[in-house]
Amino acid sequence: MILGCAWYPEHWDESRWPEDVRLMREAGMNMVRVGEFAWSRLEPAEGQYEFEWLERAIALAAENGLRTILGTPTAAPPAWLTQTYPETLAINADGRQATHGARCHFNAGNPKYLELCARIAGEMAKRFGANPHVIGWQIDNEYHRESWGEDTRRAFQAFLEARHGSLDKLNKRWSTAYWSQEYTDWAQIPLPIAWGGHNPGLQLDYKLFITEVYKQYQHVQIEAIRAHAEPRQWITHNFMGWFDLFDHYTISEELDVVAWDNYVGKGHLDFRANGAVHDLTRGFKRMNYYVLETQPGWVNWSGVGNALYPGEVRCMAWHAVGHGADAVSYWQWRSALGGQEQYHGTLVAADGAPRPLYTEVAELGKDFDRVGPLLEGTTPSSQVAVLHSYEDRWAINMQRHHRDFDPVQHLLSYYRPLRDLTHAVDIVSPLAPLEGYKLVVAPHLHLFHNAILAPLGPFMQNGGHLVLGPRSGFKDRYNALLPSRQPSVLAQGLGAHVEEFYALEEPIPVEGRWGEGRAQYWAEWLTSDAKDVDVLMSYGPGQGWLDGKPAVVTRKFGKGRITYVGAWLDEEMMAKLADWLLTVSKVEPAFGEVPDGVEVCRRAAPDGRELFIFINHTDISVQVPIPKPMRDMLTGKVHRTTLAIGPRDVAVGVKEG
Amino acid sequence: MILGCAWYPEHWDESRWPEDVRLMREAGMNMVRVGEFAWSRLEPAEGQYEFEWLERAIALAAENGLRTILGTPTAAPPAWLTQTYPETLAINADGRQATHGARCHFNAGNPKYLELCARIAGEMAKRFGANPHVIGWQIDNEYHRESWGEDTRRAFQAFLEARHGSLDKLNKRWSTAYWSQEYTDWAQIPLPIAWGGHNPGLQLDYKLFITEVYKQYQHVQIEAIRAHAEPRQWITHNFMGWFDLFDHYTISEELDVVAWDNYVGKGHLDFRANGAVHDLTRGFKRMNYYVLETQPGWVNWSGVGNALYPGEVRCMAWHAVGHGADAVSYWQWRSALGGQEQYHGTLVAADGAPRPLYTEVAELGKDFDRVGPLLEGTTPSSQVAVLHSYEDRWAINMQRHHRDFDPVQHLLSYYRPLRDLTHAVDIVSPLAPLEGYKLVVAPHLHLFHNAILAPLGPFMQNGGHLVLGPRSGFKDRYNALLPSRQPSVLAQGLGAHVEEFYALEEPIPVEGRWGEGRAQYWAEWLTSDAKDVDVLMSYGPGQGWLDGKPAVVTRKFGKGRITYVGAWLDEEMMAKLADWLLTVSKVEPAFGEVPDGVEVCRRAAPDGRELFIFINHTDISVQVPIPKPMRDMLTGKVHRTTLAIGPRDVAVGVKEG
Amino acid sequence: MILGCAWYPEHWDESRWPEDVRLMREAGMNMVRVGEFAWSRLEPAEGQYEFEWLERAIALAAENGLRTILGTPTAAPPAWLTQTYPETLAINADGRQATHGARCHFNAGNPKYLELCARIAGEMAKRFGANPHVIGWQIDNEYHRESWGEDTRRAFQAFLEARHGSLDKLNKRWSTAYWSQEYTDWAQIPLPIAWGGHNPGLQLDYKLFITEVYKQYQHVQIEAIRAHAEPRQWITHNFMGWFDLFDHYTISEELDVVAWDNYVGKGHLDFRANGAVHDLTRGFKRMNYYVLETQPGWVNWSGVGNALYPGEVRCMAWHAVGHGADAVSYWQWRSALGGQEQYHGTLVAADGAPRPLYTEVAELGKDFDRVGPLLEGTTPSSQVAVLHSYEDRWAINMQRHHRDFDPVQHLLSYYRPLRDLTHAVDIVSPLAPLEGYKLVVAPHLHLFHNAILAPLGPFMQNGGHLVLGPRSGFKDRYNALLPSRQPSVLAQGLGAHVEEFYALEEPIPVEGRWGEGRAQYWAEWLTSDAKDVDVLMSYGPGQGWLDGKPAVVTRKFGKGRITYVGAWLDEEMMAKLADWLLTVSKVEPAFGEVPDGVEVCRRAAPDGRELFIFINHTDISVQVPIPKPMRDMLTGKVHRTTLAIGPRDVAVGVKEG
Repeated sequence: MILGCAWYPEHWDESRWPEDVRLMREAGMNMVRVGEFAWSRLEPAEGQYEFEWLERAIALAAENGLRTILGTPTAAPPAWLTQTYPETLAINADGRQATHGARCHFNAGNPKYLELCARIAGEMAKRFGANPHVIGWQIDNEYHRESWGEDTRRAFQAFLEARHGSLDKLNKRWSTAYWSQEYTDWAQIPLPIAWGGHNPGLQLDYKLFITEVYKQYQHVQIEAIRAHAEPRQWITHNFMGWFDLFDHYTISEELDVVAWDNYVGKGHLDFRANGAVHDLTRGFKRMNYYVLETQPGWVNWSGVGNALYPGEVRCMAWHAVGHGADAVSYWQWRSALGGQEQYHGTLVAADGAPRPLYTEVAELGKDFDRVGPLLEGTTPSSQVAVLHSYEDRWAINMQRHHRDFDPVQHLLSYYRPLRDLTHAVDIVSPLAPLEGYKLVVAPHLHLFHNAILAPLGPFMQNGGHLVLGPRSGFKDRYNALLPSRQPSVLAQGLGAHVEEFYALEEPIPVEGRWGEGRAQYWAEWLTSDAKDVDVLMSYGPGQGWLDGKPAVVTRKFGKGRITYVGAWLDEEMMAKLADWLLTVSKVEPAFGEVPDGVEVCRRAAPDGRELFIFINHTDISVQVPIPKPMRDMLTGKVHRTTLAIGPRDVAVGVKEG
Repeated sequence: MILGCAWYPEHWDESRWPEDVRLMREAGMNMVRVGEFAWSRLEPAEGQYEFEWLERAIALAAENGLRTILGTPTAAPPAWLTQTYPETLAINADGRQATHGARCHFNAGNPKYLELCARIAGEMAKRFGANPHVIGWQIDNEYHRESWGEDTRRAFQAFLEARHGSLDKLNKRWSTAYWSQEYTDWAQIPLPIAWGGHNPGLQLDYKLFITEVYKQYQHVQIEAIRAHAEPRQWITHNFMGWFDLFDHYTISEELDVVAWDNYVGKGHLDFRANGAVHDLTRGFKRMNYYVLETQPGWVNWSGVGNALYPGEVRCMAWHAVGHGADAVSYWQWRSALGGQEQYHGTLVAADGAPRPLYTEVAELGKDFDRVGPLLEGTTPSSQVAVLHSYEDRWAINMQRHHRDFDPVQHLLSYYRPLRDLTHAVDIVSPLAPLEGYKLVVAPHLHLFHNAILAPLGPFMQNGGHLVLGPRSGFKDRYNALLPSRQPSVLAQGLGAHVEEFYALEEPIPVEGRWGEGRAQYWAEWLTSDAKDVDVLMSYGPGQGWLDGKPAVVTRKFGKGRITYVGAWLDEEMMAKLADWLLTVSKVEPAFGEVPDGVEVCRRAAPDGRELFIFINHTDISVQVPIPKPMRDMLTGKVHRTTLAIGPRDVAVGVKEG
Repeated sequence: MILGCAWYPEHWDESRWPEDVRLMREAGMNMVRVGEFAWSRLEPAEGQYEFEWLERAIALAAENGLRTILGTPTAAPPAWLTQTYPETLAINADGRQATHGARCHFNAGNPKYLELCARIAGEMAKRFGANPHVIGWQIDNEYHRESWGEDTRRAFQAFLEARHGSLDKLNKRWSTAYWSQEYTDWAQIPLPIAWGGHNPGLQLDYKLFITEVYKQYQHVQIEAIRAHAEPRQWITHNFMGWFDLFDHYTISEELDVVAWDNYVGKGHLDFRANGAVHDLTRGFKRMNYYVLETQPGWVNWSGVGNALYPGEVRCMAWHAVGHGADAVSYWQWRSALGGQEQYHGTLVAADGAPRPLYTEVAELGKDFDRVGPLLEGTTPSSQVAVLHSYEDRWAINMQRHHRDFDPVQHLLSYYRPLRDLTHAVDIVSPLAPLEGYKLVVAPHLHLFHNAILAPLGPFMQNGGHLVLGPRSGFKDRYNALLPSRQPSVLAQGLGAHVEEFYALEEPIPVEGRWGEGRAQYWAEWLTSDAKDVDVLMSYGPGQGWLDGKPAVVTRKFGKGRITYVGAWLDEEMMAKLADWLLTVSKVEPAFGEVPDGVEVCRRAAPDGRELFIFINHTDISVQVPIPKPMRDMLTGKVHRTTLAIGPRDVAVGVKEG
């Protein structure tokens, strides 16, 4: 296990460094993350490189048992750069150009900026590509900026030309006969800014374009590093959870490992919602990942910079490991005396001495020392996949039709009960292989196209259970309406179709196999077209158009099954639906029942090693029933029938004998 | 009666057209509204016209009994146009120029754009001006865009020069000695954008300027059409209810008939508030009008795209007819597969087959078949006029002084009880002829000038009752304070004046002839100046400045009467005030009392035909007492003393014998 | 006492003037404030001056006993000026240039504008500098506008160069190694606009820069006036209470007397909060001041233009006098017929006749006639100082870390109970002399630097009691973190330090010497480092990190004492804290206890004269216990043991015998 922190030696006099790395070592850390944002120190004037200080910092860290992750500093171009090449500055949606003074003020699509980024990354790789203490590279930091200038517009037009080939095709796919939008010249096509909404086809293509911009932005740096770095040095990027400016599956392809920055921001950890983000990130490459930033105490950008409870930071670290993280790294070690983030949580205070939280992280260091080797090579696994796609989220968010139809919240309405009951859920792209899953749930498989549809038939034929939620089969890959009733080509297999959809001002009753509940935000009136369709739930009486109409239907399909859920159901209904889905799909949970507020995660290795991580997220002691005796690897103690865990404490169980 | 829908044949392959028009015909429709937004198909390149497809669509519709309303496509200039003439693109208030990709991105004041609009309208008229199936023309669609560039500023300056003649006059009328605003050069005058508020005189003149811009924008198209179209083809425009960018009375002058687009948007029909918009629109030309767009189910631009109840769409159509609509047209028939309005309600679904609502509209088609001939030539009429003026609304909205003093809501506080008690209220301009009215209510006759004042004296002398609400007689036609106490020159006739006005943080008590109630938002302290003034209501005790002061006074005036209401009274008080006004003015209601939630509308023809449209807007059955036996023309059944109407159902009664 | 109003003779025909000044005189006024905004009338074209009308107005006023305060008209440049010199127009943060039509559209940093301002001020001074009726000058009006153009950016860069001397120093002080912000050229430095937050060092320097801009803007006018005006004519400016664009202490230095504009705006007078603003303004120069604008009834810029109660306007005037105002002037006499402020409260109505409020002001005129001579030379005084600094407010507001940590509200949490108990509190800069105070309270002495710290030691050594609130000793003068635990260099004397600080999502319990209460928004965990530290309050149990930790500590320091309050305490706790502070510091209140809602203020002169102003802000009659017999100078009546004051009435007591 990697345990570390972001360290910015360039903020401090070199005489301070030994004390910092000593304190890190004593906290049990084994990694520092450096270099990120240090461009003005690495290249103080164009073409003049100063890497000695960084080399000394890496060496000093190594002497204290700390390996280095090296960040390319491209999220913070220096003042000389943007002064010399003002075209590298981003343009905001109002047409104003960014200025120096914050960060991420660059235009990620600007060719000159890419050239300069590749150069600094390449120079760094020449110097550190064989450094034994450097274990990996982080490209940039939290990609997120858009630029709206004329150069972006021209690049977008070129992207569209490459994608569609001809204006005829583009016009047809975007239905531009509508509102006289037809384009007769690529140069006529606008960026999707301001002045009321834009064409959904154009909007979706813009997201694909931005994905391409960041893919290219990342690629030039990876290419420059790979030219010089030893293959053992991996390359990563730290993403931001549900953030959806671009398609993260695409951007992840060229990375060796993915990472994310996990901040609670306000209130306290919601371990179900946060766990879904871990599972999302694990799904980007369908392998373990890193948490490269997480909050030591509090953040500085929230309405209230509220502190996590004692114990909560350690629980969060184990929660990450439970979901497949192989690194936990805090941001940051110590605040620069000046700069925008003076108030962010750190491990040492303004005076350079440990803050109260330091002790808690040191405890984690001891944990990882004890359990690290055992975790090596283990990973979570699941029989249940929840499908997630950026294009579906984009398309729905562009036209929610109900302000509260947030696709992420909708996905979570499925994820939460499935996770509670099985303790193991994968979140993957619809393009991921489905073999190995017994149950595949698509909360809203909104855009239908061949690449998405092709694997579904065989999956069901071979015994899999496919569940489609509302709004499925609504549009094509160009964000145009499918000229069919939902769920389009799957209606025949389902033996039912959507007669009509309704956004709901107020929740309405549903009733059927799982008793009585409510549908909220969205309700589709289903019609059975085949005799063997089983209507599981219907809308209650007195509901106008929806009065008594089917809401949830299911039907056998080959050796498997297809189920369509036409409404966003309330939490209690979703728990019953999840239970039915798991039962009918014969899914085996990763562990048995645990008390409320306790999370259990299983990690296993091909060699048969198997660990259960138990996290008590509550502020009271709990007893977890265990089927067989287990040894808690953190305490070394063996438990027979129940495992006692203190408030905000953790146990790592391995079956005995 | 015209029943139809917006049809965009250009969105579809021509092979689909026959099925569409067949389904329209079967729904009982007799009209299609086409051409709107189709510029890129009608003139795919400058000067190259393609009208054949439109001619074929019109012919096919005609074969199916559907006559055509032809829209000029100027609300959606094609990409070639704005690329060639970028000066035709609007500039927003932040100085950014619009781009292609949505609609209404044109600058309505740009001479080149007017030239291009006139040309396409003229070419269409050459081709379709004698087409027997084209019954009328719609100019553009929902005028609403402003443009804030330097060219607009120069046009505004020219407008002001024409209006005021000299800077001396303008400076005096706008009181520009204030804040050194004095202008010594027309070129110094700004548009009213940003940087805190602008001079109220300038702001009011800007509204008159925008009115002139749209008057001219409309005029060049009408002129181009009239040069070629047969006189039987009428010309209309579809307005947007209370929208107040320009003076609708002025813009209506050159139209043969006016129309509006009636969308509920959120929740469900408030038939009193919506009825007022119908009456407003009928008042633009004081004649029957068209509803050219109304929602089939739901809209796509609301926070929740909520559906109307079963039956509600049909009730809305009859509600429109009851208030004087001679056409009801749905927007739209079917959604284009792409484009911004994919989620808007339609009559056929994405697969081209009828949606559930189709059946309800088909029922309406049968209704109109039965009752259409009887409705021919009939119109509502009333003995009560509520005065409405754009200049008063603009002036109050520019300086509400109480955030909740919404002039429309204030007007409705009078309209609602008057309508409930009489079932017939006109809403007209203060410049409309007042003959025939017994009671004229001006909720806030804010700007006094001769054209407004001149008819009021004779009206009262001849027996009319004039009611002025608060804020009346406050300003002159240039939005300057009148150097007098309210209601200015009418104070002498009233025998009372306003000593002081107060915005109210909280409602305060009033008491008097109608018992006890509350004044809210606004209260004026009235002082009687004559002995024969009758104080009807006063403010309650303990109200500081207003303690015991008169709030409502009335006095005889010639054969008639003048009443001044100095406060915005609560709903219950307004009901009592309305009852007193009707009684003292001897107004005869159009019908007797009806159950709550039931609306009755009377339409009559000069030849003596008289119909009563009863609409049950509730979800329960009701019994409406009828004074004499009536035949329900929808069922053919005769009712003696009461008329039974089902939930969300309609009856059209004609007196028997 | 000066009693007057803003009069704009240029808005009216000269024939109206006599009536206006007659009505002012009859209301007991002795001053008019003129000239402000009249630039277009004083200099209708460049270099062409018209002062005759103003001279006639001043003379006519003088004949009616009204002396004149002359405003320079620079807040409203005429149209010819900005047309000729467009560079004098301000640029907003979005980059758009202001236009003519409102006011304050100038760029206060533009050299050409300063030249033009100096010229008009100088010309006025040539003409009126010896006018016997002109008693003083007001420079401009309510400085507040920023300008964000390239010229401002260059001026900011020049300011920084002068301030820091070298980029090395600036880079170090701002910690620009952070995020590659390092500057290698002064021209690289941006203004703090948009694109996420800016460097706190840069932000703080920007505030000092804006202070310099307004200092210079004011200076050129003062210089131009002083060149011609007789020394007896004083120079002032009317500030806006808590408004904090610039450092008011700095701007006040060159003024002879300061003034502020006191508007309630919404609801009614909160005399404690409003009293603090009076005391703040008195503290700018630590002497009496003027209220140059206050509202007659209501304002026009509030959501509800709500009227003050009968009597409230007079109470507000006495409240001002009680806190040290020597002038009360109403804005304005009469509304111009046009212009943006038509709805603002005035003393005469649109018809030129007195409004109801006129009578109340006339009563005040009589009050001042009676008591004026007695007030001459008197001023409030206090043994308690609350420290207030702009740099602390700026620094905290830039990074509140808790959205509700409003430094003004935090200061008021100390001010209110201290004022309630002593009836006399000074609010002064930390740079003010501390001699004479027994108790000095710094609610948040956030930035520590030598000029601030140096006087504190001697103050305590000599017996003074220093109280530091939370967030004290956090940063240095460049807004960088101090590399120490709070309160930095004062920790040793305090014998305690801040272990950690926490923003609070919810209030938490505190307990100790003053019983049980709550801390809100902010809590610091204090640690005692010395045995003689007295822990007064601690956090309650079950609070995680803060569980049982000290919250308030105190310790002897020389002959005096230092106390540190680590949390924002609730109102009840603050009352108990204030009581303890006053007791332990042996502060003598200016008067004894008074009934709730009654305010008492003491003004005294070096010659021994002493007055007590009693203001009953409630709507019921009250009895104020008096220790010795007093004569109410307004009624002439002597009271023995209690003073009766009617609802919203005033008494001015002088001890008898």
